[in-house]
Amino acid sequence: MAVYTQLSAETLAELVAHYDVGELVSAKGIAEGVSNSNWLLETAWRAGGRRFILTMYERRIAVADLPFFLGLLDHLSAAGLPVPHTIHDSAGAAWREVQGKAVALIEFLPGISVDRPTPGQAGAVGAVLARLHMAARDFGRTRANDLGPDTSARVLADCGGAALAAIDPSLPTMADEAARVAGAWPGGLPQSVIHSDLFPDNVLILGDRVSGLIDFYFACQDAMAYDLAVTHAAWSFADEGRSYRAEIGAAMVAGYESVRPLEPAERAALPLLAEAACLRFVSSRAQDWIETPADALVTRKDPMDFVRRFEAYRAGGGEMFA
Amino acid sequence: MAVYTQLSAETLAELVAHYDVGELVSAKGIAEGVSNSNWLLETAWRAGGRRFILTMYERRIAVADLPFFLGLLDHLSAAGLPVPHTIHDSAGAAWREVQGKAVALIEFLPGISVDRPTPGQAGAVGAVLARLHMAARDFGRTRANDLGPDTSARVLADCGGAALAAIDPSLPTMADEAARVAGAWPGGLPQSVIHSDLFPDNVLILGDRVSGLIDFYFACQDAMAYDLAVTHAAWSFADEGRSYRAEIGAAMVAGYESVRPLEPAERAALPLLAEAACLRFVSSRAQDWIETPADALVTRKDPMDFVRRFEAYRAGGGEMFA
Repeated sequence: MAVYTQLSAETLAELVAHYDVGELVSAKGIAEGVSNSNWLLETAWRAGGRRFILTMYERRIAVADLPFFLGLLDHLSAAGLPVPHTIHDSAGAAWREVQGKAVALIEFLPGISVDRPTPGQAGAVGAVLARLHMAARDFGRTRANDLGPDTSARVLADCGGAALAAIDPSLPTMADEAARVAGAWPGGLPQSVIHSDLFPDNVLILGDRVSGLIDFYFACQDAMAYDLAVTHAAWSFADEGRSYRAEIGAAMVAGYESVRPLEPAERAALPLLAEAACLRFVSSRAQDWIETPADALVTRKDPMDFVRRFEAYRAGGGEMFA
Repeated sequence: MAVYTQLSAETLAELVAHYDVGELVSAKGIAEGVSNSNWLLETAWRAGGRRFILTMYERRIAVADLPFFLGLLDHLSAAGLPVPHTIHDSAGAAWREVQGKAVALIEFLPGISVDRPTPGQAGAVGAVLARLHMAARDFGRTRANDLGPDTSARVLADCGGAALAAIDPSLPTMADEAARVAGAWPGGLPQSVIHSDLFPDNVLILGDRVSGLIDFYFACQDAMAYDLAVTHAAWSFADEGRSYRAEIGAAMVAGYESVRPLEPAERAALPLLAEAACLRFVSSRAQDWIETPADALVTRKDPMDFVRRFEAYRAGGGEMFA
């Protein structure tokens, strides 16, 4: 979370003038997004105001991917999903350039991100994830998953056993587990465009209703059941991965299946997909941990949180999805 | 700018429930304030929404000073100044405690902070500063200025000539200048509660209208003309203190005097007060510079910016306020 770039009010007002949204009346840099800078903007519009998120793409996101990411927002929003659509400028462009960086103006959605979800909320998230998968099938653009099981295995192998053991003695075995999971990856599961990072941070909720899905910058083409496994792993644990909240996991799968019933092959694959989901986060967090100095001001996410979740899925198998 | 503390949505919603403002529907950590964490909150309220700034006092601000700071907001707001008032909780308290830290819910005001003010904006700021001084006279609480000219002189002396010279060879002379200014400080100038930190960052503007004055956490009892000098020094320069924008300074003093004409003693003192204002920021920035490692992720403000402004006032004397 950060605002990496300072933009003056004059620069923001000049930018907003390229859109047919009224005059800028407020701009606050917000602490959201790990690889972007974000501002909450308000413009004067008829009787009231309109609000937007301005995102500046700082790093890690390739401008070549913006037609995919921003087009996906518009496609899902048009399909009735609670996804913010992109505001196009007066010339029709979905993004502009400011100080050499791409920026996009995106609809603001209300809602808050819960820390400890209720079963009702988990069910709603499962259902909206299934709707997302159905609606994304005819999106028409595609993007490969560059953080799949092969990547997890390679990243952990590249970290090296000594560096992993320095974080935790049990971590080096994860490299072997990742190689096993990559080798066992099931082909032929039904695919769509998936979110692939639907942590509670990226879901806005009002009561038991999902009011917003945000941060699609890991979206890619992959197995729909894998996305359910990622979301299951991200939502169904408490105490930094130490305790499994069975009622949350069950409500999420039930919510998903209320919209799109899983095929037998998907259901059978879920335990392995969940292991893969955990290893995806173990690998990126281990890499970040090794590359980030301990005294840096940015918070390193502990890879052990997802090692514990991985072990729960490996031990529990299909019972975690019963 | 920072959000030093993470608060879960559940914690924020529970906090907001203590106020009669409706249910929380949005919460964004915002990158504002140097010694506080701040969130922009929205609640559902009848047909529309209400917005607030939630401030958590992290450090440097003594809880014992909160009745002064928050009471001042309410006093000035009630007097019609564009100052956000404090929202009191259902039991009437102006602040509460969350995770052992004081928090206050404060009205949200629209407006943007300009980088390069126009004369019209500078005039409006001068006028509203004079209104603030008039309205604060009957506030009834007081707080000493702990960053006055004696403090500047002591801080610069404590830095030591070698450390100052390591920043810039011309900086050690500022310790002598600060001692001279502290010794020449005029007594008997008319006082009120002053803002004492009214940089463009702390003023929200819509067109040529001041829509908000914020961040009163340096407010104290002191000479009103000194506050005008601080604001003059903060607004009337460009290029990091290298160029004086005479039209901005003139518009600000004229705006101030359109509401509250300066007494002859105040006008005569302005050049010295402006020197003192510059040395106040030279001293705190030099101290921060020396105490902050060069590779820290926080941005150090260059003390030389205000050394250049100091030299402009010393060379220009009364002509800077003609």
